[in-house]
Amino acid sequence: MPATEFELINKFFALPGASELASNKADTTILGIGDDCALTLPPTGMQIAQTIDTLVEGRHFLPNADPYMLGHKALAVNLSDLAAMGAQPASVLLSLTLPEADESWLSAFSSGFLSLARTYDVKLIGGDTTSGPLSITIQAQGFVPPGTAIQRAGAQPGDLIYVSGDIGDAGLGLMVAMGEYSEISDVCLERLNAPEPRVALGYALRGLATSAIDISDGLLADLDHICAASNVGASITYDDVPVSSAVKQYRESTGDNLMPVTAGDDYELCFTVPAKRMREIEVLSEAQAIQLSCIGQITAETGLQLLDTNEQVICVEGRSGYDHFSTS
Amino acid sequence: MPATEFELINKFFALPGASELASNKADTTILGIGDDCALTLPPTGMQIAQTIDTLVEGRHFLPNADPYMLGHKALAVNLSDLAAMGAQPASVLLSLTLPEADESWLSAFSSGFLSLARTYDVKLIGGDTTSGPLSITIQAQGFVPPGTAIQRAGAQPGDLIYVSGDIGDAGLGLMVAMGEYSEISDVCLERLNAPEPRVALGYALRGLATSAIDISDGLLADLDHICAASNVGASITYDDVPVSSAVKQYRESTGDNLMPVTAGDDYELCFTVPAKRMREIEVLSEAQAIQLSCIGQITAETGLQLLDTNEQVICVEGRSGYDHFSTS
Repeated sequence: MPATEFELINKFFALPGASELASNKADTTILGIGDDCALTLPPTGMQIAQTIDTLVEGRHFLPNADPYMLGHKALAVNLSDLAAMGAQPASVLLSLTLPEADESWLSAFSSGFLSLARTYDVKLIGGDTTSGPLSITIQAQGFVPPGTAIQRAGAQPGDLIYVSGDIGDAGLGLMVAMGEYSEISDVCLERLNAPEPRVALGYALRGLATSAIDISDGLLADLDHICAASNVGASITYDDVPVSSAVKQYRESTGDNLMPVTAGDDYELCFTVPAKRMREIEVLSEAQAIQLSCIGQITAETGLQLLDTNEQVICVEGRSGYDHFSTS
Repeated sequence: MPATEFELINKFFALPGASELASNKADTTILGIGDDCALTLPPTGMQIAQTIDTLVEGRHFLPNADPYMLGHKALAVNLSDLAAMGAQPASVLLSLTLPEADESWLSAFSSGFLSLARTYDVKLIGGDTTSGPLSITIQAQGFVPPGTAIQRAGAQPGDLIYVSGDIGDAGLGLMVAMGEYSEISDVCLERLNAPEPRVALGYALRGLATSAIDISDGLLADLDHICAASNVGASITYDDVPVSSAVKQYRESTGDNLMPVTAGDDYELCFTVPAKRMREIEVLSEAQAIQLSCIGQITAETGLQLLDTNEQVICVEGRSGYDHFSTS
């Protein structure tokens, strides 16, 4: 790679993009890109939420993926993890492994990355650049007052289960992108390539949700993570799972009913709320103009059940996978 | 990859290795591996030093590298960055990209990683595991009291330039490992494969060194980073650069005098100290039983000069590279 790490980072990320990020919170960055470490000073008494995620070409995105979208998505999946904890995003470190120093690729990637960073006032404080098979690792940190982080382990029997947005769009987008489904859906491709992290929602769910997770592996798999951590089960009414018209059409034409609840990459939030606080979710939904759908309830008995509208079990999920699934 | 990310991390890293790391400092980990984010509470008033580094197979280590050594090295290079700032290591996040879930490889890798983590009381608080070409990204954080972090930008004309340990061993080790040099040196291979981060030294240099960097790219290149950040130059006496007997022998048999000052991966510290505080460095060297060698002086004029013992210029380095190098 001809350009040095330092030159690359400075050229595409440090100036002027990252440094001009106006801050509407206490500026915690003492020293940014360019030394052995970045230095930050977290707000006194705040806990730090930290996450790391790697996207690998061929595994998390298709070869020749649009670099602008990729810059957005690589950051979005990390901000989504912060959102799932109710943390306010603060800063990130970026490690880029690139087959070559392709300036046009880097320019587009950094634009997508920095555009999303600006939206959520996230600072790029450091990084690493090396040559190798294309992959992107981002480590993100956010702040959360002690005791308010929403963990996976807090779900209680009787809690209502909610999801934000529509479920399954990114899964359908992947099929479209891979040529496995012929009905082009720009909405679903957008959902796949440029997911919007639910930062403001996560923030608002502090003190309200008893547990939360972002849907990266698929609704059932991620809800199962909540259930496992909370030592509870869940009962979901399949028809209450919100899907877009594109996904409805896909289901009808293919009979593939499991896709919306098993496909990942939606980066919506799945969370649980005490039943008596349902009204607060309605208020929040209106205030943020975000669709929040109640899809079921936490049960004392472990395991996941998918029910049809007549409360008949149509799918039972244990740790070993899906036992059966007939029709919806 | 058959095992899930969560299972892998738990099996090899979370239990019992990471969780049993006894802490001799305030325990700052509120929530470790297993949720969307880790949660930590930094000591009040402390700044956080953060770094991220990726090691890619074929670029930073040879294919079929010993996984125990690799686990050590991946952590060591990050702790070395913390050491170069004078920060006390606290915790790390680990993102592993693996071609397959090879249990014996993972077992050895985690052993090497956790062994070094225990030595420096570093907690593994989170991670990510995915399939793809082998690479390892570690993000590390440490604590440092405000105003005490050793930055690259503090070197002043007249400051003495020091290095810890011997220089060039890892470079020679790489040649041995690649079969480019026939004289096997176990010491140099060990220095290449299992570098010891200079954590205690970095810690002790706070308030004493005016600048510091760890030698990862090569002595001249890394010293040039200090000079660039500090807007100064440096004059080094070649014969004062400490080398092992193996490197001496290599130089004599090949005439390759540049290797020790240009090869990277030694992870020794290069730092500058006001001349009047030379005695304190001697005391520190004795106290830590670590070789600290004065190799030259910071100059007001920019650029790097390598001098022979008669103060004749034998190599001049500008930003464009090495102008010439005759003999030592």
